[in-house]
Amino acid sequence: MKKKVLVVGGVAGGATAVARLRRLDEEAEIILFERDPYVSFANCGLPYYIGGTIAERDKLLLQTPESFKNRFNIDVRVHSKVVAVDAEKKEVTVTTSDGTTYSESYTHLILSPGAKPFIPPIKGIDMPRILSLRNVPDTDRIKEMVDLQTTKDVVVIGGGFIGVEMAENLIDIGMQTHLVEAAPHILAPFDSEISTMLEDELTKHGIGLHLGKKAVEFTEKEDRVTIHFESGESIDADLVILSIGVQPDTQFLVNSGIKLDERGRIITNEYLETNYSNVYAVGDAIMVEHHVLSGKAHIPLAGPANRQGRIVANNIALKQRERFNPVLGSSILKIFDLAAASTGSNERALMQAGIPYQPIYIHPNSHATYYPGATSLTIKLLYHPETHVVLGAQAIGENSVDKFIDVIAMAMHFNATVYDLADAELTYAPPYSSAKSPVNMAGFVARNIIEGLMPHARFEEALNLDLSKQILLDVRDDAEVKALKLNHSIHISVNELRHGRESELDKSKEILVYCAVGVRGYIATRYLLSKGFKVRNIMGGMKLASGYNIK
Amino acid sequence: MKKKVLVVGGVAGGATAVARLRRLDEEAEIILFERDPYVSFANCGLPYYIGGTIAERDKLLLQTPESFKNRFNIDVRVHSKVVAVDAEKKEVTVTTSDGTTYSESYTHLILSPGAKPFIPPIKGIDMPRILSLRNVPDTDRIKEMVDLQTTKDVVVIGGGFIGVEMAENLIDIGMQTHLVEAAPHILAPFDSEISTMLEDELTKHGIGLHLGKKAVEFTEKEDRVTIHFESGESIDADLVILSIGVQPDTQFLVNSGIKLDERGRIITNEYLETNYSNVYAVGDAIMVEHHVLSGKAHIPLAGPANRQGRIVANNIALKQRERFNPVLGSSILKIFDLAAASTGSNERALMQAGIPYQPIYIHPNSHATYYPGATSLTIKLLYHPETHVVLGAQAIGENSVDKFIDVIAMAMHFNATVYDLADAELTYAPPYSSAKSPVNMAGFVARNIIEGLMPHARFEEALNLDLSKQILLDVRDDAEVKALKLNHSIHISVNELRHGRESELDKSKEILVYCAVGVRGYIATRYLLSKGFKVRNIMGGMKLASGYNIK
Repeated sequence: MKKKVLVVGGVAGGATAVARLRRLDEEAEIILFERDPYVSFANCGLPYYIGGTIAERDKLLLQTPESFKNRFNIDVRVHSKVVAVDAEKKEVTVTTSDGTTYSESYTHLILSPGAKPFIPPIKGIDMPRILSLRNVPDTDRIKEMVDLQTTKDVVVIGGGFIGVEMAENLIDIGMQTHLVEAAPHILAPFDSEISTMLEDELTKHGIGLHLGKKAVEFTEKEDRVTIHFESGESIDADLVILSIGVQPDTQFLVNSGIKLDERGRIITNEYLETNYSNVYAVGDAIMVEHHVLSGKAHIPLAGPANRQGRIVANNIALKQRERFNPVLGSSILKIFDLAAASTGSNERALMQAGIPYQPIYIHPNSHATYYPGATSLTIKLLYHPETHVVLGAQAIGENSVDKFIDVIAMAMHFNATVYDLADAELTYAPPYSSAKSPVNMAGFVARNIIEGLMPHARFEEALNLDLSKQILLDVRDDAEVKALKLNHSIHISVNELRHGRESELDKSKEILVYCAVGVRGYIATRYLLSKGFKVRNIMGGMKLASGYNIK
Repeated sequence: MKKKVLVVGGVAGGATAVARLRRLDEEAEIILFERDPYVSFANCGLPYYIGGTIAERDKLLLQTPESFKNRFNIDVRVHSKVVAVDAEKKEVTVTTSDGTTYSESYTHLILSPGAKPFIPPIKGIDMPRILSLRNVPDTDRIKEMVDLQTTKDVVVIGGGFIGVEMAENLIDIGMQTHLVEAAPHILAPFDSEISTMLEDELTKHGIGLHLGKKAVEFTEKEDRVTIHFESGESIDADLVILSIGVQPDTQFLVNSGIKLDERGRIITNEYLETNYSNVYAVGDAIMVEHHVLSGKAHIPLAGPANRQGRIVANNIALKQRERFNPVLGSSILKIFDLAAASTGSNERALMQAGIPYQPIYIHPNSHATYYPGATSLTIKLLYHPETHVVLGAQAIGENSVDKFIDVIAMAMHFNATVYDLADAELTYAPPYSSAKSPVNMAGFVARNIIEGLMPHARFEEALNLDLSKQILLDVRDDAEVKALKLNHSIHISVNELRHGRESELDKSKEILVYCAVGVRGYIATRYLLSKGFKVRNIMGGMKLASGYNIK
């Protein structure tokens, strides 16, 4: 029987699915419904068009209904909103922009409706100067507003990926920009000591940060919006952009017979089938298994959506039962001169999930320091203290952040242990990396801890000393100590320690050692251990200080 | 018993070993012998100092005898040549630069003598205007020569990593530069269609390339050297730099009792022990197991040497039996604006080893094309047609070459199949990659072949058609065809094919389809297959043409 495949939603997962499907099955009838005027647009590029980095609007449109028709013989219907699905009758109901409503039957249905901006029920939130960003028309609307001579300042509410990218792009076009986040820190995929570094980058570039501020009301006066916070404070702006989060755009499925969870997300099995085996769902509207955390996760990212679209096409056309594997949530974003990336779980989520973990920090250079242009990165790696399996990694820096996190993500696909990272054989030449890659270094540090070679302390411990029992020892050089040091620290450089000055230390106390990145601290720790001291090295060293607001 | 560890050779492996050893064992006596005046220098940086990219000579010196003494209490003896080892007596004989000879006993010996430039027995090769590059004094000598007003042109003999890097750096300082290679192509880690692209980059930047030319004699006349080739041709220059290859610097071990192979390389087991369990060897003077090819390989690279040094220190100090894993030979080099990297085995070596393989080619962009700055890469992936295990990868391009090869190298560590590459979950944002990463794309293409979805042809087949039985079909757009097309090709664009023009094709013949990179060719292949044609897609498309000297 000839297949008739209907697809709801023409971006990422949906667009991938139809192209793959046609390549696999020339005979199938394929109809793609999109409520908006555009399909297959560059979702992740929208903020950069507003900011002018992407200069031509046409670049946002990867495919058009015409290109899909010409190349793939896909019947793309834009301005066509699927308003209902009857999974028993295998039929969808479609409303077009001119008000016409009609039904279309299917043998297979692919749901790729995506997620829409979450608009909380806050008083005044529906005023026209409060916009949100999902699609090309939204982008046009925001661009039109910021292009007005009268628009001078903008408040972005929500410090997730889109909010932060939006704020950066608003700075790029000269807007006075504020970013409001209800949580204590922006960018939930990162732990707070890393997100603090990202916040510093935003502040450095002139973004007004308002952390831990919850908007409770919006009022308008003389073409300006005032955002009132729960704290009683307020700020005002010519324009407000909401990017508080997303929710699945699945209202049309409520009476379809297709199972949704309590938050409206489509429930699928590992083959991306819903409770109807001829109905599949992909993208931002579904839940997926998390590779590290047990249970389901919501990962609204382009990468998984695209791979899901491909798998669904395979499963329909090739009669395969191909599985969509659990996700790591690998993600990256540019923040001005920095990149920040993560994969797997962060410390906060591991703690919540009750999974034992050990963090380590390294601050390697992007490539050999003797070759020009090397820049510093911070990498936080989390692993399981018993199994030694890598649980997650976060990195921030100017260069090679994507590379090192991608390598770790690839390793995590195989449930790598830190020993695998230590043994990784990656490419090296001076312009690209170091003979001991940062990935190796992360493995080496973790091994030193596992093998009992490096008793370790967290940076927090240096800030919460019991001076009756502990000594804080700074083993850096004079100039570094002069620039910034921790309270209550005493200073003996690592080399001096070996040459007679260890005798200045009280053997009855525990010594917490620190340096800039942790390497000299480790050397000092090893030396003092050999001399019978009780000593621990503060992981990450002073390069973490800014993450604890010590500047 | 207190350990007394002697180390022969103070670069890479040896330098890593002593630092690690001290961190693990404060009590051990550690003596490092280095025949040259410098230890722990930036080996891989030497050409870049000659080329001026690394401006300060001091940057080449990562550690000094003093710094090793101060920080690690290592007794570093430079200008100290170990001339003999007696493994039975556990003793080495050392000659210093002032002619003194003495013995030193050991409990443990680490051999890190490295490899020296191979100087073939060619008539005239010992003249003073023929230099080679191994260490800092060599570098000083070359730099002094090229800094002379009278030095205008240089011939580099040997197109390996050092030769190519040297040639690039000579261009950077304005030398007329020629590169001579006896084999048909430079850079043996790459297959010829890739190394041809690298050769184009050298030529583009003004390097005179002499491939397949074997030097058989050198003569000197009026301060110029003439290099005579086997072919009867010759070129001449003010200076010749030899980088024909390396050989282990192990003459001092000949009567030591320590086993060497027929080419003088030290034989070790997987714990890096020689035939004496208290004598270890690391670095460029040993052979290692190859991860892909069965048997031993010589991989003179900094990364493995450093990890070997660490392992040996662990095995001595911690009484572990830590294994050095088989190597992939991951490597990278910069060639002007390009990077070229490889991991695992190339096609030539697989063929020689009799290992079945299937190559695929992709030409992805370094990041989303709609975001500025995206550049094109070529990736060649080799996998086993039955097990689907990845056997090797090569990449060339301006950006992200290191990243994608490193990710594949990490995957190969786990004996990844192409399915693992297809499923990899890597970071994506428009400035960094694509929603479908090139690593995913490589996996997708390989899967299409494995699953019988894409009958494929090699580029060579398009050059060796049987026109009585085959049709060569170009499915690109008009402008592309106008710019460059293959002989005997007929042109029907992929979209036209679907809209009525398939009837122009003779169903009794086999159709070889090509486009620019292979994607449209694949779409056309799928379409024609569905219509009953016999058709194969030419992998890699016209982007491989330059690799076959079609320009």
